[in-house]
Amino acid sequence: MSLLDCLGTTDALAAIFSDESILTAMLEFESALARGGAAAGLIPASAAHVISEVALRGGFDTDAIAAAARGPATPAIPLVQALRERVHAFNPESAAYVHSGATSQDVTDTALILLVKQARVPVAADHARLDAALRQLSDRHAATVMLGRTLLQPATPITFGLKVAGWTSAITHSWRRLNAAWIRAGVIQFGGAAGTLAALGEKGRRVVEETARELDLRAVPPWHTNRDRLGVLISACGLHVAALGKAARDIALLMQAEVGEAAERGGGSSSMPQKQNPSGCAIVLAAAARMPSLVAAYLTAMSQEHERSVGGSQAEWPIVASAIQATGAAVHALTQVIDGLSVDSDRMRRNLDATGGTIYAERAAIRLAPSIGREQALRLVTEAVAETRQAGTSFVQALRSKVGSTVSSELLDDIDRPEQYLGSAEALRIKLLNDPED
Amino acid sequence: MSLLDCLGTTDALAAIFSDESILTAMLEFESALARGGAAAGLIPASAAHVISEVALRGGFDTDAIAAAARGPATPAIPLVQALRERVHAFNPESAAYVHSGATSQDVTDTALILLVKQARVPVAADHARLDAALRQLSDRHAATVMLGRTLLQPATPITFGLKVAGWTSAITHSWRRLNAAWIRAGVIQFGGAAGTLAALGEKGRRVVEETARELDLRAVPPWHTNRDRLGVLISACGLHVAALGKAARDIALLMQAEVGEAAERGGGSSSMPQKQNPSGCAIVLAAAARMPSLVAAYLTAMSQEHERSVGGSQAEWPIVASAIQATGAAVHALTQVIDGLSVDSDRMRRNLDATGGTIYAERAAIRLAPSIGREQALRLVTEAVAETRQAGTSFVQALRSKVGSTVSSELLDDIDRPEQYLGSAEALRIKLLNDPED
Amino acid sequence: MSLLDCLGTTDALAAIFSDESILTAMLEFESALARGGAAAGLIPASAAHVISEVALRGGFDTDAIAAAARGPATPAIPLVQALRERVHAFNPESAAYVHSGATSQDVTDTALILLVKQARVPVAADHARLDAALRQLSDRHAATVMLGRTLLQPATPITFGLKVAGWTSAITHSWRRLNAAWIRAGVIQFGGAAGTLAALGEKGRRVVEETARELDLRAVPPWHTNRDRLGVLISACGLHVAALGKAARDIALLMQAEVGEAAERGGGSSSMPQKQNPSGCAIVLAAAARMPSLVAAYLTAMSQEHERSVGGSQAEWPIVASAIQATGAAVHALTQVIDGLSVDSDRMRRNLDATGGTIYAERAAIRLAPSIGREQALRLVTEAVAETRQAGTSFVQALRSKVGSTVSSELLDDIDRPEQYLGSAEALRIKLLNDPED
Amino acid sequence: MSLLDCLGTTDALAAIFSDESILTAMLEFESALARGGAAAGLIPASAAHVISEVALRGGFDTDAIAAAARGPATPAIPLVQALRERVHAFNPESAAYVHSGATSQDVTDTALILLVKQARVPVAADHARLDAALRQLSDRHAATVMLGRTLLQPATPITFGLKVAGWTSAITHSWRRLNAAWIRAGVIQFGGAAGTLAALGEKGRRVVEETARELDLRAVPPWHTNRDRLGVLISACGLHVAALGKAARDIALLMQAEVGEAAERGGGSSSMPQKQNPSGCAIVLAAAARMPSLVAAYLTAMSQEHERSVGGSQAEWPIVASAIQATGAAVHALTQVIDGLSVDSDRMRRNLDATGGTIYAERAAIRLAPSIGREQALRLVTEAVAETRQAGTSFVQALRSKVGSTVSSELLDDIDRPEQYLGSAEALRIKLLNDPED
Repeated sequence: MSLLDCLGTTDALAAIFSDESILTAMLEFESALARGGAAAGLIPASAAHVISEVALRGGFDTDAIAAAARGPATPAIPLVQALRERVHAFNPESAAYVHSGATSQDVTDTALILLVKQARVPVAADHARLDAALRQLSDRHAATVMLGRTLLQPATPITFGLKVAGWTSAITHSWRRLNAAWIRAGVIQFGGAAGTLAALGEKGRRVVEETARELDLRAVPPWHTNRDRLGVLISACGLHVAALGKAARDIALLMQAEVGEAAERGGGSSSMPQKQNPSGCAIVLAAAARMPSLVAAYLTAMSQEHERSVGGSQAEWPIVASAIQATGAAVHALTQVIDGLSVDSDRMRRNLDATGGTIYAERAAIRLAPSIGREQALRLVTEAVAETRQAGTSFVQALRSKVGSTVSSELLDDIDRPEQYLGSAEALRIKLLNDPED
Repeated sequence: MSLLDCLGTTDALAAIFSDESILTAMLEFESALARGGAAAGLIPASAAHVISEVALRGGFDTDAIAAAARGPATPAIPLVQALRERVHAFNPESAAYVHSGATSQDVTDTALILLVKQARVPVAADHARLDAALRQLSDRHAATVMLGRTLLQPATPITFGLKVAGWTSAITHSWRRLNAAWIRAGVIQFGGAAGTLAALGEKGRRVVEETARELDLRAVPPWHTNRDRLGVLISACGLHVAALGKAARDIALLMQAEVGEAAERGGGSSSMPQKQNPSGCAIVLAAAARMPSLVAAYLTAMSQEHERSVGGSQAEWPIVASAIQATGAAVHALTQVIDGLSVDSDRMRRNLDATGGTIYAERAAIRLAPSIGREQALRLVTEAVAETRQAGTSFVQALRSKVGSTVSSELLDDIDRPEQYLGSAEALRIKLLNDPED
Repeated sequence: MSLLDCLGTTDALAAIFSDESILTAMLEFESALARGGAAAGLIPASAAHVISEVALRGGFDTDAIAAAARGPATPAIPLVQALRERVHAFNPESAAYVHSGATSQDVTDTALILLVKQARVPVAADHARLDAALRQLSDRHAATVMLGRTLLQPATPITFGLKVAGWTSAITHSWRRLNAAWIRAGVIQFGGAAGTLAALGEKGRRVVEETARELDLRAVPPWHTNRDRLGVLISACGLHVAALGKAARDIALLMQAEVGEAAERGGGSSSMPQKQNPSGCAIVLAAAARMPSLVAAYLTAMSQEHERSVGGSQAEWPIVASAIQATGAAVHALTQVIDGLSVDSDRMRRNLDATGGTIYAERAAIRLAPSIGREQALRLVTEAVAETRQAGTSFVQALRSKVGSTVSSELLDDIDRPEQYLGSAEALRIKLLNDPED
Repeated sequence: MSLLDCLGTTDALAAIFSDESILTAMLEFESALARGGAAAGLIPASAAHVISEVALRGGFDTDAIAAAARGPATPAIPLVQALRERVHAFNPESAAYVHSGATSQDVTDTALILLVKQARVPVAADHARLDAALRQLSDRHAATVMLGRTLLQPATPITFGLKVAGWTSAITHSWRRLNAAWIRAGVIQFGGAAGTLAALGEKGRRVVEETARELDLRAVPPWHTNRDRLGVLISACGLHVAALGKAARDIALLMQAEVGEAAERGGGSSSMPQKQNPSGCAIVLAAAARMPSLVAAYLTAMSQEHERSVGGSQAEWPIVASAIQATGAAVHALTQVIDGLSVDSDRMRRNLDATGGTIYAERAAIRLAPSIGREQALRLVTEAVAETRQAGTSFVQALRSKVGSTVSSELLDDIDRPEQYLGSAEALRIKLLNDPED
């Protein structure tokens, strides 16, 4: 794991996208290619055996391959050369069968896919935990009233359960899409020099299928310059992290000392013992700050020339690796935030009460309008809001004194009870949590 | 239509996203809201009638509303105020029922959705034409051999039909996704002040459903700060334009005078009578240059605070309008390019032949290897390539003279016939055109 | 002004980037070109007079030109054609001299520059007001103590004057850079067909200089595919809006009801009479959400092919127009925010006090360490913080009772007086406001 | 160096941004802080000596620190803790003086700056080579005529020297800006908990200056949430890579077999022996595809909250590291491309001639217009162009036969000599290469 990007990954993902892993994945492709070629009768079984053995035995020099990758602008060439040399040393006749019928991008794309495929597992596990924690949190706070806030200002009351259900719904939908895109991306890249499998002669389809089977990937037509599946995956990462980021932003705001309605566990400071930082949220929000640009970078690189591109495809590895890792880091961090979140329902209520009831201004105007007309109602309500602000008293009292006896006294009863001004909050909460698709 | 963005839209889309349209859409929301409210028993039918009449009659001052939008950071407030004043002038009692239970973002989001929904129609029509033209083009050139090109260099032969099938497959998949996202985005926004529909009391659900029915939109929970559907739509635009851009880039490259394998109809110059510019491709590529950033902008704006955001939502209108229009402009331009594309099969063949046969170097090496060993084969092939380049002669002749009598003379027969080195090109073409999903 | 982008511009900028303006600017180029050509002896003075007259008389059909722009992928061609026809109708001999020696991109680029140049004036005026208001605000609150907040949590005290000086310094630096880039961008584009001015023969340099003089632009070598000056300008817009966005975000956070330390004037709601929204901040933050992508779009479009590009240059107009307008909108909105900002110093102090003194934990640990050792100091301080949180009492009292008589009682005196824990705040404030460059 | 990003860096930069380097840089900050504190009389000289010794001795566990960084969302906290423990083990009394007065971001920002500063050296060295090679190349080809190409179509002639001068001018200007931004970024970050240096009491300024001196960085006010200098640097990287990308795109296009006017040295293929790939250009273009998004990511992260941000600053390390490395990789790759570029002047001439002279259509029309009127001239020229295209003959001959005896025969003499239709090409070339600023 790189220290410079340690907040942008998890242990599991850092291991999956390590140099060792990508090298291994490239060698697995060459091994599978040899075995697939043998199964299809393209190359001798004995050569396939040797190649596969040598490839999977490891011991290649990652640094040398990385350094030599720059000349031809692909690590596949030094990798194949190193493999061929080792095979040759072991069994000279087999060397001619290394990399048969494949092109560099077949190696690099398939290797990337192998890592991407592995990466889904730990992220999906985190998501499952996150999803369960969110649903539990929403249920637990179905009746916890709090301030709705619009443009960061007090609006009318909501429940914390509804707020969490909103996060959950967005995260559920974007995860479902991301997960499907992730699974759909599990395909082999195999087209040979110009994507026609010409070097395989009649055996093209068969070799591709056998090689794909060896790698447990689906066999599809070559996609050297049709980057749709990866594009969909990276876009889905972008949308998912945006949904996670929305929740993290809300939580970081609720954690402000002046609001104090929620708190992450942990989150210290190197200089200030009193700090309780939204550290988990910071990791999610850091991912959210980077992801849109990673999506844009991938989309930019997608308009690739002819049968294989100059520039576009060479830009992809770090984009894909960063995007997947940032997504995983965000899922993991938010999972820990939600798992350890403490919620202060009393403070939610106190913050609500601290508005003095001005948040019921809309409600009061609506209730008064039929009796005294909308304009008069609005005028009195506005005056009462102003008075409440200045005097720090109760909006309902201020309004009562303004309305006087022009309307029945009961009309304003209960007007400032948040539990009675939640509208469809609970119905919406249930719907958000349960609706399979909309 | 704005002259500054005239290449980034079409006539149809410019009309749909005009000031008049967005104003009308906002008023349609208010009209539907009144009628929906009346249907649900929230407001008097007579008031609903008056409001609807006044709203749909038109005559509002767009410039004044736009200018007044900046104070409250939303055009909904001056629009609602202007509507209320007009209703009041017509029927004072009805004025109180304008905008009942809705919040500003309910108006602006729903209005945007109404335009977005309309915009699908002309784009889908263009897509249908494009799709048909592409399939026809691919079929017509199923057997047209041409150079495959990787990193802009001659690789092994392909067919133009396969190349077009690659474009078609990518465009088909991304369109299917875009179309689905577009339809899914056809939902009402209606949540009231903090998204609980509190001002509608018990009638919340009913009013929302009736209002949605009036607008022919689906009723869903409020999504003030859950921008998933629009996010998916804009991402899908990004992916679709990337697929279109790939085709346009290929065509612009094929149109180079030195390549000369394809030509757009039209495309003049203000100073050079001889120019035949890839003007349609330029419009597609201009869209492709902008779209990744529009996607990123939307994703950036998605992490919105609490129940309604400060900054994020206010950024969306121009992003969505530009993204949809750029997409439509790209679909339209590529449709015209493909419709009028002339293909020079002879030139394709000549360009292929102009390589002197060096593109068969891989093939020759594979064929010679069993007889003389891979290394020797590769050495001779490389020498023959060099000789071909310097002398400008034929690769096969050069190779023959090098190989001498060590191998059977027939071994190199037909090695430079492109038709015999197409591998699975036709099978892949068929698969790409017909595979419903992969 | 477009209603869809009404929050992303100002009245002045909307007028500058209107269809009328861009059309006029293109015609001004043609007029200047004719007069410049005449001055250099390239075309007859009489023809120049006619062309200039007809061009500046106006009455061209913007919509028709916009619609006809799509065929050749440039509005210059229909514009030149329309001008030529009108000149011909007026004086047939002069028609041949229209657009002499220029190419389409000479017209479109120079026209864009003319608008960009005009746009600096209102933005600079707003900036001057903003700058004065910020400096005044910082001076006024040089001694106003408030909570420093890190990761949105209470840190140690700062002054509001220092916070404002931080905004001011960033805005001053980025404005200086933006202003210089803006002025540097005031150059003519004039290269003819391939950038050699070949059609002007020996008179190339002279015609360019005369034409530039007519337009009050600097004469520089053609920059058809060297977009550096505009790239620098758009990047500088991005950096400036980021600086404005930082201030707006801080203010929107300070305006939260639970914080209540600052308030914008105005900012209503369509449903809630009590709302005091950070509407101006919302406009700034909306610009900040869009600008990074506009910069990226411009940079993406910059790698343009050969002497004039296919796609890149055609993407630029809407990017540049949006970027400049968004910048101007942000400057204008923040100017109004700062001009009308009310600051609640008492609330700042109360929020500081509401921490119970835990923000002095670092200070207490430092002061105790020499007497009782760092670890013991840190332990007691941490316990006192926890006790303060639970009991809601004073940190200093809690700490005193823990420390007991092990240290001199005076050691903790004054430890919770924020005025005495401001470090270099005032020196830094002065430096930030006055340092010309760093 | 990471294999996944091996094309996006150089050996030198990979070493500078390695885990070891960033860890060392953080420890250098702590060492300098201790020594600076001692120099200013804040902490005992003996403690400073111990801390500095222990810090610089190395042996810290990078992986452990990276893993522990996620809890507090910063590697500074586990790093400081590890340092303190080691110091304590060595000399318990000194442990209390570790990290005195600094905050986490002081460590991480300053460490980043130390790496960024080092990174300038190898990039500047590459740039110097590139610059010299470009100027030499331009001079050598001052008189080499070639096709100017606009929208990828033949336009009028230019010289290759002028084309290279265009690249050079853009690269010179953007490098000058980047270099200045890079030097300007060499500043310490030191503000303490909330940026007031409060924990340093009266000695704040002195400690900062001494610490900065130790690190050979400039002392400036804290910039925890004012990211202007880094923003300018990353933007300048974006602009520079765009300029490099333009040159690389041109070269990759010139290298097409069908154009064949230039060739990189090297650039093989894993499957095709004949390939001469634009591998160096591919690396530059890969950087150009990623950079706009890295700039956007940095700009997005710049609007940071209050005194230290939640999310923004945590996103920066990988963005800055990637941006600097991608820039260096692009400079290095283009340097090698230009150093080894072979230019085929004959082919340039042949490609020019292959247009049959149609590229002189503009010239012919201009020359004929005075004699036969512009419309007639344009009509004949257009007919001659069409005839040339169809018959594959000479444009001048076709035109002569059309013009007949209506004009003097000499009028069309020399019209198709490219050397005589270069306009101001050489003057512009000189100006582009020599103009210090424009």
